[in-house]
Amino acid sequence: MSEISSYKFCVEPQKVDFTLCAAIPAMAGVILDTAGLDAHGKGFGVDALNARNCSWVLSRMALELDRRPAQYDTYEVATWISDYGRVLSTRNFTLTDASGAEFGRAVTQWAMIDLTARTAVDLSGVGREHADAMIDRPSPTDKPRKILSINPTTYVEHRVVYSDIDFNRHMNTLRYIDLLFDAMPLELVASQRAVRLDIHFLRECRHGQLLTLGSEQRDDVWLFTINNGEQEAVRASVEWRS
Amino acid sequence: MSEISSYKFCVEPQKVDFTLCAAIPAMAGVILDTAGLDAHGKGFGVDALNARNCSWVLSRMALELDRRPAQYDTYEVATWISDYGRVLSTRNFTLTDASGAEFGRAVTQWAMIDLTARTAVDLSGVGREHADAMIDRPSPTDKPRKILSINPTTYVEHRVVYSDIDFNRHMNTLRYIDLLFDAMPLELVASQRAVRLDIHFLRECRHGQLLTLGSEQRDDVWLFTINNGEQEAVRASVEWRS
Repeated sequence: MSEISSYKFCVEPQKVDFTLCAAIPAMAGVILDTAGLDAHGKGFGVDALNARNCSWVLSRMALELDRRPAQYDTYEVATWISDYGRVLSTRNFTLTDASGAEFGRAVTQWAMIDLTARTAVDLSGVGREHADAMIDRPSPTDKPRKILSINPTTYVEHRVVYSDIDFNRHMNTLRYIDLLFDAMPLELVASQRAVRLDIHFLRECRHGQLLTLGSEQRDDVWLFTINNGEQEAVRASVEWRS
Repeated sequence: MSEISSYKFCVEPQKVDFTLCAAIPAMAGVILDTAGLDAHGKGFGVDALNARNCSWVLSRMALELDRRPAQYDTYEVATWISDYGRVLSTRNFTLTDASGAEFGRAVTQWAMIDLTARTAVDLSGVGREHADAMIDRPSPTDKPRKILSINPTTYVEHRVVYSDIDFNRHMNTLRYIDLLFDAMPLELVASQRAVRLDIHFLRECRHGQLLTLGSEQRDDVWLFTINNGEQEAVRASVEWRS
Protein backbone atom coordinates (compact mmCIF):
# COMPACT_ATOMS: atom_id res chain seq x y z
CA MET A 1 0.00 0.00 0.00
CA SER A 2 1.26 3.40 -1.03
CA GLU A 3 1.65 6.66 0.90
CA ILE A 4 -0.47 9.72 0.11
CA SER A 5 1.53 12.03 -2.17
CA SER A 6 1.64 15.76 -1.56
CA TYR A 7 2.67 18.50 -3.95
CA LYS A 8 3.52 22.06 -3.02
CA PHE A 9 2.20 24.99 -5.05
CA CYS A 10 2.24 28.74 -4.94
CA VAL A 11 -0.59 30.93 -6.28
CA GLU A 12 1.20 32.36 -9.31
CA PRO A 13 0.10 35.73 -10.73
CA GLN A 14 -1.35 34.05 -13.84
CA LYS A 15 -3.78 32.11 -11.62
CA VAL A 16 -5.42 35.08 -9.86
CA ASP A 17 -8.34 37.22 -10.91
CA PHE A 18 -8.74 40.95 -10.30
CA THR A 19 -9.37 40.34 -6.58
CA LEU A 20 -5.78 39.00 -6.44
CA CYS A 21 -7.10 35.64 -5.25
CA ALA A 22 -6.88 32.41 -7.21
CA ALA A 23 -9.72 32.01 -9.71
CA ILE A 24 -11.86 28.91 -9.13
CA PRO A 25 -11.23 27.51 -12.64
CA ALA A 26 -7.49 27.99 -12.03
CA MET A 27 -7.75 25.88 -8.87
CA ALA A 28 -9.55 23.21 -10.89
CA GLY A 29 -6.56 23.37 -13.23
CA VAL A 30 -4.16 22.76 -10.34
CA ILE A 31 -6.20 19.71 -9.32
CA LEU A 32 -5.92 18.26 -12.82
CA ASP A 33 -2.22 19.14 -13.09
CA THR A 34 -1.66 17.31 -9.80
CA ALA A 35 -3.51 14.26 -11.11
CA GLY A 36 -1.25 14.30 -14.18
CA LEU A 37 1.93 14.78 -12.14
CA ASP A 38 1.10 12.02 -9.71
CA ALA A 39 0.06 9.51 -12.38
CA HIS A 40 3.17 10.37 -14.41
CA GLY A 41 5.44 9.95 -11.37
CA LYS A 42 3.88 6.57 -10.56
CA GLY A 43 4.25 5.26 -14.10
CA PHE A 44 0.62 5.33 -15.24
CA GLY A 45 0.41 8.82 -16.70
CA VAL A 46 -1.10 9.70 -20.07
CA ASP A 47 2.34 9.30 -21.70
CA ALA A 48 2.73 5.70 -20.45
CA LEU A 49 -0.87 4.90 -21.40
CA ASN A 50 -0.46 6.39 -24.87
CA ALA A 51 2.29 3.87 -25.51
CA ARG A 52 -0.42 1.22 -24.97
CA ASN A 53 -2.86 3.18 -27.17
CA CYS A 54 -4.92 4.19 -24.14
CA SER A 55 -5.56 7.42 -22.28
CA TRP A 56 -7.21 8.67 -19.11
CA VAL A 57 -10.40 10.65 -19.64
CA LEU A 58 -11.95 12.70 -16.87
CA SER A 59 -15.54 11.60 -16.48
CA ARG A 60 -16.72 13.54 -13.40
CA MET A 61 -15.31 16.04 -10.96
CA ALA A 62 -16.47 17.55 -7.69
CA LEU A 63 -14.50 20.48 -6.31
CA GLU A 64 -15.17 22.30 -3.05
CA LEU A 65 -13.38 25.49 -2.09
CA ASP A 66 -14.09 27.07 1.30
CA ARG A 67 -12.12 30.13 0.22
CA ARG A 68 -9.74 31.16 -2.53
CA PRO A 69 -6.06 31.59 -1.57
CA ALA A 70 -4.32 34.90 -2.31
CA GLN A 71 -1.56 35.57 -4.83
CA TYR A 72 1.81 34.09 -3.74
CA ASP A 73 0.15 32.02 -0.96
CA THR A 74 1.70 28.58 -0.75
CA TYR A 75 -0.44 25.50 -0.33
CA GLU A 76 -0.25 21.75 -0.61
CA VAL A 77 -2.35 19.35 -2.64
CA ALA A 78 -2.51 15.78 -1.33
CA THR A 79 -3.82 13.16 -3.72
CA TRP A 80 -4.67 9.48 -3.56
CA ILE A 81 -6.58 6.87 -5.52
CA SER A 82 -9.16 5.24 -3.28
CA ASP A 83 -10.74 2.73 -5.64
CA TYR A 84 -11.06 1.24 -9.08
CA GLY A 85 -14.49 0.25 -10.34
CA ARG A 86 -15.00 -1.62 -13.59
CA VAL A 87 -15.17 1.64 -15.56
CA LEU A 88 -14.12 4.46 -13.21
CA SER A 89 -11.19 5.04 -10.90
CA THR A 90 -11.54 7.56 -8.09
CA ARG A 91 -8.76 10.05 -7.36
CA ASN A 92 -9.13 12.31 -4.33
CA PHE A 93 -7.54 15.58 -3.30
CA THR A 94 -7.30 17.82 -0.26
CA LEU A 95 -5.91 21.36 -0.34
CA THR A 96 -4.24 22.71 2.78
CA ASP A 97 -2.73 26.11 3.41
CA ALA A 98 0.70 26.88 4.89
CA SER A 99 -0.70 26.57 8.44
CA GLY A 100 -2.04 23.09 7.67
CA ALA A 101 -5.71 24.12 7.53
CA GLU A 102 -7.77 22.39 4.84
CA PHE A 103 -9.48 24.92 2.55
CA GLY A 104 -10.64 22.70 -0.30
CA ARG A 105 -11.08 19.18 -1.58
CA ALA A 106 -11.93 17.34 -4.75
CA VAL A 107 -13.06 13.97 -5.99
CA THR A 108 -12.43 13.02 -9.61
CA GLN A 109 -13.50 9.94 -11.53
CA TRP A 110 -11.57 8.78 -14.55
CA ALA A 111 -12.21 6.30 -17.30
CA MET A 112 -9.46 4.72 -19.35
CA ILE A 113 -10.25 4.71 -23.04
CA ASP A 114 -8.84 2.77 -25.95
CA LEU A 115 -7.71 5.49 -28.36
CA THR A 116 -8.64 3.56 -31.50
CA ALA A 117 -12.01 2.17 -30.46
CA ARG A 118 -12.70 5.27 -28.27
CA THR A 119 -14.44 3.01 -25.77
CA ALA A 120 -13.83 2.50 -22.07
CA VAL A 121 -11.33 -0.12 -21.01
CA ASP A 122 -12.35 -2.52 -18.22
CA LEU A 123 -10.35 -1.36 -15.19
CA SER A 124 -10.57 -4.59 -13.19
CA GLY A 125 -7.15 -5.71 -14.43
CA VAL A 126 -5.70 -2.22 -14.11
CA GLY A 127 -6.90 -2.03 -10.52
CA ARG A 128 -4.95 -5.18 -9.67
CA GLU A 129 -1.90 -3.90 -11.57
CA HIS A 130 -1.98 -0.58 -9.70
CA ALA A 131 -3.02 -2.05 -6.33
CA ASP A 132 0.06 -0.65 -4.61
CA ALA A 133 -0.86 2.88 -5.74
CA MET A 134 -4.19 2.66 -3.90
CA ILE A 135 -4.82 4.12 -0.47
CA ASP A 136 -7.38 2.91 2.02
CA ARG A 137 -8.77 6.36 2.87
CA PRO A 138 -12.26 7.49 1.90
CA SER A 139 -13.00 10.41 -0.40
CA PRO A 140 -12.89 13.74 1.49
CA THR A 141 -16.42 14.71 0.40
CA ASP A 142 -19.37 13.42 -1.63
CA LYS A 143 -18.45 11.94 -4.98
CA PRO A 144 -19.58 13.97 -8.01
CA ARG A 145 -23.37 14.23 -7.81
CA LYS A 146 -25.79 13.35 -10.57
CA ILE A 147 -27.55 16.39 -12.02
CA LEU A 148 -30.99 15.16 -12.90
CA SER A 149 -32.89 17.87 -14.69
CA ILE A 150 -32.11 21.30 -16.06
CA ASN A 151 -34.52 23.79 -17.57
CA PRO A 152 -32.26 26.44 -19.08
CA THR A 153 -33.55 30.00 -19.10
CA THR A 154 -30.53 31.64 -20.74
CA TYR A 155 -28.21 30.54 -23.50
CA VAL A 156 -24.79 31.59 -24.75
CA GLU A 157 -22.91 30.20 -27.73
CA HIS A 158 -19.24 29.36 -28.02
CA ARG A 159 -17.31 28.18 -31.07
CA VAL A 160 -14.58 25.63 -30.21
CA VAL A 161 -11.31 27.23 -31.33
CA TYR A 162 -7.60 26.30 -31.36
CA SER A 163 -6.96 27.71 -27.88
CA ASP A 164 -9.76 25.52 -26.48
CA ILE A 165 -8.52 22.15 -27.67
CA ASP A 166 -6.28 19.52 -26.12
CA PHE A 167 -3.91 16.92 -27.52
CA ASN A 168 -6.93 14.93 -28.76
CA ARG A 169 -8.32 17.98 -30.66
CA HIS A 170 -11.21 18.01 -28.20
CA MET A 171 -12.32 20.85 -26.00
CA ASN A 172 -10.05 20.99 -22.96
CA THR A 173 -11.69 20.18 -19.62
CA LEU A 174 -10.68 23.50 -18.13
CA ARG A 175 -12.27 25.48 -20.94
CA TYR A 176 -15.66 23.96 -20.05
CA ILE A 177 -15.16 25.12 -16.47
CA ASP A 178 -14.23 28.58 -17.79
CA LEU A 179 -17.48 28.64 -19.78
CA LEU A 180 -19.50 27.97 -16.61
CA PHE A 181 -17.84 30.68 -14.55
CA ASP A 182 -17.93 33.13 -17.48
CA ALA A 183 -21.72 32.67 -17.56
CA MET A 184 -22.30 33.77 -13.94
CA PRO A 185 -22.23 37.36 -12.66
CA LEU A 186 -18.74 38.76 -12.13
CA GLU A 187 -19.52 39.77 -8.50
CA LEU A 188 -20.46 36.18 -7.72
CA VAL A 189 -17.50 34.35 -9.29
CA ALA A 190 -15.05 36.86 -7.82
CA SER A 191 -16.63 36.71 -4.34
CA GLN A 192 -15.10 34.82 -1.43
CA ARG A 193 -18.15 32.58 -1.01
CA ALA A 194 -17.57 28.90 -0.47
CA VAL A 195 -18.45 26.91 -3.54
CA ARG A 196 -19.00 23.39 -4.79
CA LEU A 197 -18.70 22.47 -8.47
CA ASP A 198 -20.01 19.20 -9.89
CA ILE A 199 -19.30 18.50 -13.54
CA HIS A 200 -19.99 15.46 -15.74
CA PHE A 201 -18.33 15.03 -19.09
CA LEU A 202 -20.72 13.07 -21.28
CA ARG A 203 -19.35 13.53 -24.77
CA GLU A 204 -16.44 15.17 -26.53
CA CYS A 205 -16.63 18.50 -28.34
CA ARG A 206 -14.49 18.97 -31.40
CA HIS A 207 -12.69 21.92 -33.01
CA GLY A 208 -15.10 24.05 -35.03
CA GLN A 209 -18.28 22.90 -33.27
CA LEU A 210 -20.67 25.58 -32.06
CA LEU A 211 -21.52 24.90 -28.42
CA THR A 212 -24.65 26.12 -26.69
CA LEU A 213 -24.43 26.63 -22.94
CA GLY A 214 -27.83 26.68 -21.24
CA SER A 215 -28.09 27.97 -17.65
CA GLU A 216 -30.72 27.81 -14.97
CA GLN A 217 -30.43 29.55 -11.61
CA ARG A 218 -32.21 28.07 -8.55
CA ASP A 219 -31.36 30.44 -5.72
CA ASP A 220 -27.72 29.72 -4.86
CA VAL A 221 -27.38 26.86 -7.30
CA TRP A 222 -26.58 27.35 -10.98
CA LEU A 223 -27.23 24.44 -13.33
CA PHE A 224 -25.60 24.15 -16.73
CA THR A 225 -25.90 22.01 -19.83
CA ILE A 226 -23.60 22.22 -22.83
CA ASN A 227 -24.75 20.90 -26.19
CA ASN A 228 -22.33 20.47 -29.09
CA GLY A 229 -24.98 20.78 -31.80
CA GLU A 230 -25.44 17.02 -31.91
CA GLN A 231 -25.92 15.96 -28.31
CA GLU A 232 -25.53 16.99 -24.69
CA ALA A 233 -21.81 17.04 -23.96
CA VAL A 234 -21.47 18.39 -20.41
CA ARG A 235 -23.76 18.83 -17.40
CA ALA A 236 -22.72 20.80 -14.34
CA SER A 237 -23.87 22.53 -11.20
CA VAL A 238 -22.26 25.27 -9.13
CA GLU A 239 -23.53 25.67 -5.58
CA TRP A 240 -22.63 28.87 -3.75
CA ARG A 241 -22.53 28.36 -0.01
CA SER A 242 -22.39 30.58 3.10
CA MET B 1 25.91 46.79 -14.76
CA SER B 2 23.92 43.59 -14.30
CA GLU B 3 24.34 40.07 -15.69
CA ILE B 4 21.83 38.57 -18.13
CA SER B 5 19.40 36.41 -16.16
CA SER B 6 18.39 32.97 -17.38
CA TYR B 7 15.40 30.88 -16.36
CA LYS B 8 14.94 27.19 -17.02
CA PHE B 9 11.60 25.84 -18.23
CA CYS B 10 10.13 22.57 -19.35
CA VAL B 11 7.34 22.28 -21.92
CA GLU B 12 4.55 21.16 -19.61
CA PRO B 13 1.60 19.17 -20.98
CA GLN B 14 -0.76 22.14 -20.52
CA LYS B 15 1.38 24.18 -22.96
CA VAL B 16 1.23 21.82 -25.95
CA ASP B 17 -1.32 21.52 -28.72
CA PHE B 18 -2.46 18.32 -30.39
CA THR B 19 0.88 18.03 -32.23
CA LEU B 20 2.45 17.61 -28.77
CA CYS B 21 4.59 20.71 -29.41
CA ALA B 22 4.29 23.96 -27.47
CA ALA B 23 1.55 26.22 -28.84
CA ILE B 24 2.83 29.62 -30.03
CA PRO B 25 0.53 31.58 -27.66
CA ALA B 26 1.80 29.39 -24.79
CA MET B 27 5.38 30.41 -25.66
CA ALA B 28 4.29 34.05 -25.64
CA GLY B 29 2.95 33.32 -22.16
CA VAL B 30 6.31 31.98 -21.03
CA ILE B 31 7.98 35.17 -22.32
CA LEU B 32 5.60 37.31 -20.25
CA ASP B 33 5.94 35.05 -17.19
CA THR B 34 9.72 35.43 -17.47
CA ALA B 35 9.40 39.22 -17.65
CA GLY B 36 7.28 39.14 -14.49
CA LEU B 37 9.65 36.77 -12.67
CA ASP B 38 12.73 38.79 -13.54
CA ALA B 39 11.20 42.16 -12.64
CA HIS B 40 9.86 40.69 -9.39
CA GLY B 41 13.25 39.22 -8.48
CA LYS B 42 14.98 42.52 -9.17
CA GLY B 43 12.55 44.53 -7.06
CA PHE B 44 10.60 46.36 -9.77
CA GLY B 45 7.83 43.87 -10.42
CA VAL B 46 4.15 44.75 -10.65
CA ASP B 47 3.77 44.10 -6.90
CA ALA B 48 6.47 46.66 -6.00
CA LEU B 49 5.06 49.14 -8.51
CA ASN B 50 1.52 48.70 -7.21
CA ALA B 51 2.71 49.87 -3.82
CA ARG B 52 3.59 53.14 -5.59
CA ASN B 53 0.22 53.11 -7.43
CA CYS B 54 1.92 52.26 -10.73
CA SER B 55 2.02 49.22 -12.98
CA TRP B 56 3.85 47.92 -16.05
CA VAL B 57 1.74 47.74 -19.19
CA LEU B 58 2.89 45.83 -22.25
CA SER B 59 2.80 48.17 -25.21
CA ARG B 60 4.37 46.13 -28.03
CA MET B 61 5.78 42.69 -28.50
CA ALA B 62 7.70 40.92 -31.25
CA LEU B 63 8.17 37.15 -30.94
CA GLU B 64 10.06 34.93 -33.36
CA LEU B 65 10.02 31.15 -33.12
CA ASP B 66 12.12 29.11 -35.55
CA ARG B 67 10.41 25.97 -34.30
CA ARG B 68 8.18 24.86 -31.44
CA PRO B 69 9.76 22.67 -28.75
CA ALA B 70 8.17 19.31 -27.92
CA GLN B 71 6.39 18.30 -24.71
CA TYR B 72 8.81 17.81 -21.79
CA ASP B 73 11.69 19.49 -23.72
CA THR B 74 13.72 21.71 -21.43
CA TYR B 75 14.84 25.15 -22.55
CA GLU B 76 16.21 28.36 -21.17
CA VAL B 77 14.92 31.90 -21.50
CA ALA B 78 17.53 34.64 -21.11
CA THR B 79 16.21 38.14 -20.50
CA TRP B 80 17.68 41.61 -20.22
CA ILE B 81 16.60 45.24 -20.36
CA SER B 82 18.58 47.08 -23.01
CA ASP B 83 17.20 50.59 -22.73
CA TYR B 84 14.72 53.01 -21.20
CA GLY B 85 13.19 55.69 -23.39
CA ARG B 86 11.01 58.45 -21.99
CA VAL B 87 7.88 56.29 -22.29
CA LEU B 88 8.99 52.75 -23.14
CA SER B 89 11.51 50.34 -21.69
CA THR B 90 12.81 47.50 -23.85
CA ARG B 91 13.09 43.98 -22.46
CA ASN B 92 14.69 41.31 -24.64
CA PHE B 93 14.61 37.52 -24.63
CA THR B 94 16.38 34.63 -26.28
CA LEU B 95 15.18 31.02 -26.10
CA THR B 96 17.74 28.24 -26.29
CA ASP B 97 17.25 24.50 -26.22
CA ALA B 98 19.08 21.95 -24.05
CA SER B 99 21.94 21.76 -26.56
CA GLY B 100 22.41 25.54 -26.40
CA ALA B 101 20.92 26.26 -29.86
CA GLU B 102 18.77 29.40 -30.07
CA PHE B 103 15.28 28.63 -31.39
CA GLY B 104 13.44 31.86 -30.62
CA ARG B 105 13.71 35.43 -29.47
CA ALA B 106 11.49 38.31 -28.41
CA VAL B 107 11.55 42.04 -27.89
CA THR B 108 8.95 43.64 -25.64
CA GLN B 109 8.33 47.29 -24.90
CA TRP B 110 6.68 48.35 -21.69
CA ALA B 111 5.15 51.55 -20.40
CA MET B 112 4.73 52.34 -16.72
CA ILE B 113 1.31 53.76 -15.94
CA ASP B 114 -0.04 55.66 -12.99
CA LEU B 115 -3.00 53.56 -11.86
CA THR B 116 -5.16 56.53 -10.85
CA ALA B 117 -4.52 58.86 -13.78
CA ARG B 118 -4.09 55.86 -16.16
CA THR B 119 -1.41 57.81 -18.02
CA ALA B 120 2.19 56.89 -18.81
CA VAL B 121 4.85 57.77 -16.27
CA ASP B 122 8.02 59.46 -17.56
CA LEU B 123 10.67 56.72 -17.39
CA SER B 124 13.72 59.02 -17.42
CA GLY B 125 13.98 58.90 -13.64
CA VAL B 126 13.15 55.17 -13.51
CA GLY B 127 15.91 54.49 -16.06
CA ARG B 128 18.46 56.12 -13.75
CA GLU B 129 17.04 54.27 -10.73
CA HIS B 130 17.26 50.92 -12.53
CA ALA B 131 20.55 51.65 -14.33
CA ASP B 132 22.23 48.65 -12.75
CA ALA B 133 19.53 46.33 -14.12
CA MET B 134 20.39 47.37 -17.69
CA ILE B 135 22.61 45.38 -20.02
CA ASP B 136 24.63 46.78 -22.88
CA ARG B 137 23.58 44.17 -25.43
CA PRO B 138 21.36 44.95 -28.42
CA SER B 139 17.94 43.42 -29.01
CA PRO B 140 18.20 39.97 -30.64
CA THR B 141 15.94 40.94 -33.56
CA ASP B 142 13.99 43.92 -34.95
CA LYS B 143 11.93 45.76 -32.38
CA PRO B 144 8.14 45.38 -32.77
CA ARG B 145 7.25 46.72 -36.21
CA LYS B 146 4.59 49.31 -36.97
CA ILE B 147 1.61 47.87 -38.82
CA LEU B 148 0.47 50.66 -41.08
CA SER B 149 -2.71 49.65 -42.86
CA ILE B 150 -5.14 46.77 -42.64
CA ASN B 151 -8.14 46.10 -44.87
CA PRO B 152 -9.98 43.31 -43.09
CA THR B 153 -11.82 40.81 -45.25
CA THR B 154 -13.18 38.60 -42.44
CA TYR B 155 -14.52 39.35 -39.01
CA VAL B 156 -15.20 37.38 -35.84
CA GLU B 157 -16.72 38.64 -32.62
CA HIS B 158 -15.67 37.90 -29.05
CA ARG B 159 -17.34 38.98 -25.81
CA VAL B 160 -14.80 39.77 -23.03
CA VAL B 161 -15.60 37.33 -20.20
CA TYR B 162 -14.29 36.56 -16.71
CA SER B 163 -11.69 34.06 -17.95
CA ASP B 164 -10.27 36.72 -20.30
CA ILE B 165 -9.57 39.44 -17.77
CA ASP B 166 -6.52 40.29 -15.68
CA PHE B 167 -6.03 41.93 -12.29
CA ASN B 168 -7.04 45.27 -13.84
CA ARG B 169 -10.34 43.80 -15.16
CA HIS B 170 -8.97 44.31 -18.68
CA MET B 171 -8.55 41.68 -21.36
CA ASN B 172 -5.39 39.70 -20.63
CA THR B 173 -2.56 40.11 -23.16
CA LEU B 174 -2.41 36.40 -23.83
CA ARG B 175 -6.08 36.19 -24.69
CA TYR B 176 -5.55 38.67 -27.53
CA ILE B 177 -2.78 36.43 -28.86
CA ASP B 178 -5.15 33.45 -28.55
CA LEU B 179 -7.75 35.35 -30.59
CA LEU B 180 -5.23 35.86 -33.42
CA PHE B 181 -4.16 32.23 -33.59
CA ASP B 182 -7.75 31.02 -33.22
CA ALA B 183 -8.61 33.04 -36.35
CA MET B 184 -6.07 31.30 -38.61
CA PRO B 185 -6.45 27.82 -40.13
CA LEU B 186 -5.69 24.98 -37.71
CA GLU B 187 -3.15 23.37 -40.11
CA LEU B 188 -1.20 26.63 -40.20
CA VAL B 189 -1.04 27.40 -36.47
CA ALA B 190 -0.20 23.78 -35.66
CA SER B 191 2.49 23.56 -38.36
CA GLN B 192 6.22 23.68 -37.64
CA ARG B 193 6.75 26.77 -39.80
CA ALA B 194 8.94 29.53 -38.41
CA VAL B 195 6.85 32.51 -37.37
CA ARG B 196 7.14 36.15 -36.34
CA LEU B 197 4.38 37.86 -34.35
CA ASP B 198 4.20 41.65 -33.94
CA ILE B 199 1.50 43.00 -31.67
CA HIS B 200 0.68 46.54 -30.52
CA PHE B 201 -1.62 47.19 -27.61
CA LEU B 202 -3.30 50.53 -28.24
CA ARG B 203 -6.20 50.57 -25.81
CA GLU B 204 -7.67 48.44 -23.06
CA CYS B 205 -10.70 46.19 -23.49
CA ARG B 206 -13.01 45.78 -20.52
CA HIS B 207 -15.19 42.96 -19.19
CA GLY B 208 -18.45 42.75 -21.11
CA GLN B 209 -17.27 44.58 -24.24
CA LEU B 210 -17.97 42.93 -27.58
CA LEU B 211 -14.72 42.81 -29.58
CA THR B 212 -14.53 42.57 -33.34
CA LEU B 213 -11.42 40.96 -34.80
CA GLY B 214 -10.83 41.87 -38.44
CA SER B 215 -8.32 39.82 -40.46
CA GLU B 216 -6.59 40.29 -43.78
CA GLN B 217 -4.32 37.68 -45.38
CA ARG B 218 -1.49 38.82 -47.69
CA ASP B 219 0.20 35.59 -48.78
CA ASP B 220 2.18 34.43 -45.75
CA VAL B 221 1.34 37.45 -43.64
CA TRP B 222 -1.86 37.76 -41.62
CA LEU B 223 -2.85 41.20 -40.40
CA PHE B 224 -5.28 41.77 -37.56
CA THR B 225 -7.13 44.62 -35.95
CA ILE B 226 -9.27 44.35 -32.82
CA ASN B 227 -11.92 46.94 -32.09
CA ASN B 228 -13.65 47.13 -28.71
CA GLY B 229 -16.79 48.80 -30.05
CA GLU B 230 -15.43 52.25 -29.28
CA GLN B 231 -11.97 52.31 -30.80
CA GLU B 232 -9.16 50.20 -32.23
CA ALA B 233 -7.58 48.36 -29.30
CA VAL B 234 -4.98 46.03 -30.80
CA ARG B 235 -3.14 45.74 -34.11
CA ALA B 236 -1.04 42.73 -34.99
CA SER B 237 0.67 40.80 -37.76
CA VAL B 238 1.72 37.17 -38.00
CA GLU B 239 4.32 36.34 -40.63
CA TRP B 240 4.79 32.65 -41.50
CA ARG B 241 8.30 31.96 -42.77
CA SER B 242 10.12 29.10 -44.53
